[in-house]
Formats: sequence, structure tokens, C-alpha cells
Amino acid sequence: MRLSPAAELAIRGSLILAKRHNQGPVTLGMICDDDKRLSREYLARVFGMMARAGIVRPIRGKNGGYVLTRDPKNISLLEVIEAVEGPQALNICQNNPPLCENYKTCKVQKVWKELQGIFDKKLSAVKLSELY
Amino acid sequence: MRLSPAAELAIRGSLILAKRHNQGPVTLGMICDDDKRLSREYLARVFGMMARAGIVRPIRGKNGGYVLTRDPKNISLLEVIEAVEGPQALNICQNNPPLCENYKTCKVQKVWKELQGIFDKKLSAVKLSELY
Repeated sequence: MRLSPAAELAIRGSLILAKRHNQGPVTLGMICDDDKRLSREYLARVFGMMARAGIVRPIRGKNGGYVLTRDPKNISLLEVIEAVEGPQALNICQNNPPLCENYKTCKVQKVWKELQGIFDKKLSAVKLSELY
Repeated sequence: MRLSPAAELAIRGSLILAKRHNQGPVTLGMICDDDKRLSREYLARVFGMMARAGIVRPIRGKNGGYVLTRDPKNISLLEVIEAVEGPQALNICQNNPPLCENYKTCKVQKVWKELQGIFDKKLSAVKLSELY
């Protein structure tokens, strides 16, 4: 069980946008200068997913780039992860609806449900503004 | 972030062995009769991984099959998952050693560390004997 590389990148990229919030559009070049481990092409794809999820806005033109659509104190880590991974389900019984017909009586399901609750609560409580 | 299909299968298969513990070897056929969603070929591969991890023992011969190497009350859910997925790391900064050079100062790392701790504690506390 592991965070996807796309979600790792989304977190890193969005933290750079958060740090420069209200300072105008940030280009992919500026982001990749700031964090040398980021791939420009991959980041463009990930920001495309984040734009569709309403977290990032691409600004076209000469002085274009990317900005966050909202204040970083109103964007949670969970939103960033879900923008690229979709709704979080730690395993098949946490899908909505569950992908296993035994979920009502299954004792394993209760364990995952507890972990899913903790996971969702923590990641939705932590905002981008707290992380840079 | 999601449990792998192999780990889902390992949990299901080991719970059937746990339920029949001390009743002699359990064949793949018996397991697949008990849980129709399991694939025999895939289960054989997963049990191979669990045998290498010391959780399952294959018994050869006419009345052969698989048994748990220990009492189900001494096998945790975490051990079953790690038998097929390897050591658990929710993301790159929870690898040992971390796969990111910023882990000492990074505030995101603290969030994952907290979740990793909760995750490991819960999954190692829950034993197979509690789950069927």
C-alpha cells in the first residue's frame, strides 16, 4: 500500500504553488528550478489533473504559468491526493459501493474502515499552508 | 493508495487456513470452493510468497495442501500483507532509508510518519484468529 508517484508529485508541485501564492503565475521552469527532482513533462500532466479537479488554474500567455485556485489554507492534502488518484479507498471493501459482497459481515472490513476513517480525517485536516 | 490485489488474496487465503487450523493440510481446491472469488493459480503464487515469509507451509503428497506455520492468534494482518508486499512504506519518505533527501526538515513527512505509525500499530495488533 503506497502513495502513487503522481500523488507524490502533486503534493510537491502544489506546495511550491502554495509558497508563491498571490505572487502571480508560476511556470513549470520555476517549479523545476525550485525542486530539481521534478520532471517538467510529468508535472504538466499532473497539474492538468489538478486543474480538472479545481485546485490549480493554468494561466496562458507570455507571463503565464500556474496558480492555486484557492488560498493554501483551504486546500487539504486529501484534495491534492484525490485530484490525481480519485476517491481514496485503502482496499476493495472501502470502495463506495464496496467491491466485495461480504463487507457487511466481514471482520477484516472493520479494520480497514477504522484505518480509512483515520486516514481521511488526518489528510483532510492538514492544509497546504501548514506544510511549507 | 491502495492494498495490492496480491495482499487482498493473501488475507482471504490465510483466513481460510486459519479457520481450518489443526485440521490437516488444506488444498487450493478446498480454498477455492470456500471462496469462489479466488483464482487457484494466483493463490498458488501468493501462498508461495507466504511460504518464503514463513507464514504458510506447503505439504507435498497425496493428502498434501497448505497449513499455517503458527497458531492464527500469533499471525498479524501486517505480517500477511508484508509477506507479499514487503516492508510497508505509505510513501517515499517512509522507506527505510527514506527515498527523499528532505525528510529531516519536511513537514509533509511528519504527516506520513504519524499515519505510518497508526497503520503499523493497528495492523500488527490484529491477528488472524480475530478475523473469521
